Amino acid sequence: MKIALDAMGGDHAPAAAVHAAVWAARDFGLTVQLVGQSAAIEAELAHHKTAGLDLPIIPASQVIEMHEHPATAVKSKKDASMVVGMNLVKRGESAAFVSAGNSGGVLAAALFGLGRIKGIKRPALSVIFPNTSPQGYCFLLDVGANTDARPEYLLQFALMGHHYASEVLNMANPRIGLLSTGEEEDKGSMLVQEVTPLLKASPLNFIGNVEGKDVPAGLADVVVTDGFTGNVFIKGAEGVASMIVKQLEREIKARPLAVLGALLARPAFRALKARLDYREYGGGPLLGVNGVVIIAHGRSDAYAIRNAIRVAKQAAEKNIVGVIERGLNESAIDQPAREAVG
Amino acid sequence: MKIALDAMGGDHAPAAAVHAAVWAARDFGLTVQLVGQSAAIEAELAHHKTAGLDLPIIPASQVIEMHEHPATAVKSKKDASMVVGMNLVKRGESAAFVSAGNSGGVLAAALFGLGRIKGIKRPALSVIFPNTSPQGYCFLLDVGANTDARPEYLLQFALMGHHYASEVLNMANPRIGLLSTGEEEDKGSMLVQEVTPLLKASPLNFIGNVEGKDVPAGLADVVVTDGFTGNVFIKGAEGVASMIVKQLEREIKARPLAVLGALLARPAFRALKARLDYREYGGGPLLGVNGVVIIAHGRSDAYAIRNAIRVAKQAAEKNIVGVIERGLNESAIDQPAREAVG
Repeated sequence: MKIALDAMGGDHAPAAAVHAAVWAARDFGLTVQLVGQSAAIEAELAHHKTAGLDLPIIPASQVIEMHEHPATAVKSKKDASMVVGMNLVKRGESAAFVSAGNSGGVLAAALFGLGRIKGIKRPALSVIFPNTSPQGYCFLLDVGANTDARPEYLLQFALMGHHYASEVLNMANPRIGLLSTGEEEDKGSMLVQEVTPLLKASPLNFIGNVEGKDVPAGLADVVVTDGFTGNVFIKGAEGVASMIVKQLEREIKARPLAVLGALLARPAFRALKARLDYREYGGGPLLGVNGVVIIAHGRSDAYAIRNAIRVAKQAAEKNIVGVIERGLNESAIDQPAREAVG
Repeated sequence: MKIALDAMGGDHAPAAAVHAAVWAARDFGLTVQLVGQSAAIEAELAHHKTAGLDLPIIPASQVIEMHEHPATAVKSKKDASMVVGMNLVKRGESAAFVSAGNSGGVLAAALFGLGRIKGIKRPALSVIFPNTSPQGYCFLLDVGANTDARPEYLLQFALMGHHYASEVLNMANPRIGLLSTGEEEDKGSMLVQEVTPLLKASPLNFIGNVEGKDVPAGLADVVVTDGFTGNVFIKGAEGVASMIVKQLEREIKARPLAVLGALLARPAFRALKARLDYREYGGGPLLGVNGVVIIAHGRSDAYAIRNAIRVAKQAAEKNIVGVIERGLNESAIDQPAREAVG
């Protein structure tokens, strides 16, 4: 299997991306196509042992930077690594594309280059979010592709989340929760109140509305929300976790006995860190576009990008695009939502 | 000063509320009016030493339960503790009303009983949110009063937040941040993009848009958002903190040396807990209604409610209602927003 990687994407590109490609090629037996500026990639590859690994360079002379306006950049930079990578997927030369670059840019490049799955109104960006369930995480979408959503989009996000959780994450009959301000159906925004009856009427395992605290508590396997709320939610969670770690460090450092205690407890802290580490899952799929696209955190190091490549492999192996397309046809959720439910 | 307390509100009412009233009356030298069912309150008061304290009972025969529909309950239960308490404030017999009951009920009772400050379009529910700044917290609103907001509401929330932070929290020229999905002005929902120019044109110290992770990082002193996003955000933060504690406990318990280490580090854990404990601030003001109303967490114990009474005292001493009214007139933000900014 060939996976295309945006060698120029992310805060630590190209070093982290090239390192990740070497790592993933070795661990997962993949061909990793390094898309980007050849000279820079070659210079990085020289730092690694690559004997026996298949790491072709696919030249792309331009880079979409983090601060650029996504749609404008994608339109004007025809030879950007993201654009070239999407074309590889479109032509069937890559099973998936992975990028830690400007996520709006990846979204725009995917929409221009691959388009949407027939019947899907909007793609959704997703993440694996840690929780206290035995499984250890849920699947949360949308986390930023659509800052203003309509009820029928959220219904489709739920459907796509169901298929991804079932097929790729191996969750049986995943519990779908709609993020809201209370469990009661009369709570929440107008959007939530319009989505609730659509989800109830759908064939999905909809367990009702869940609150912010219910997500880490593991009440739902798939959490559906609009891209604005989802984005604020995951970044808030990241910030809170970081604040807790910093404050605890500060309190420990102020107390000599606590410093000793923290040393003794270090393996427990490390285990906790691994459990909450976004790098373990590497990246989230951009669902609804006509190809497998995985978006990794801009801050990703080589380990995170290596794992994002693993996620891409799994999604491609399970043919998530075909599964969603079939699921959409079977559930009739590609019809205008109001007609579909009544 | 007389503060009215909803003796029937909260998961642990009336025991926690009555205990809190005794505690606050003693510590803050207040008269705390216990509003609710006399027999139940008297039975609880009998468990405490109340000699020398002024704890009058204000009879209210009905209770608005947690699951009730707020507006319906407030309209039908004329003798509910929340309704009676608001009337005390309206008649000037109490300087403030504090409740840990159904927050939608408190909002409805405040709107019916007190009305809005002249010129304020919508009230906002606020909280003190911990962060890593030297001050240790920011002021966040709206966290649930308005699940669907309009740009001019958020502009007024910013103004009210500015005055509360300045007057009651003693922050000089508080930095106002608008919660969004990125710092860039072209990011965020349509609502956010419409609010940004209004805030820029206002006399407030608007520092721009902040992301979810920037809130615990302390980038803004006052964080403004709609009630849906704010509610999901704070409940998510609560859930994440709780998950981290649970997972860390689990990892520690699995390792005997770590158990010893955690014992040694216990004072540091306790200090962290106190720093993040919502009970320290007790409750958040419902800003924009024509009286001082403090809403405490439904789970509040006596300590949290005691502190909510302290918050009520501070807000009443600083005449927050008058300050907001004056601030609104001076800033001309009571005018239709689009006219006010040009």
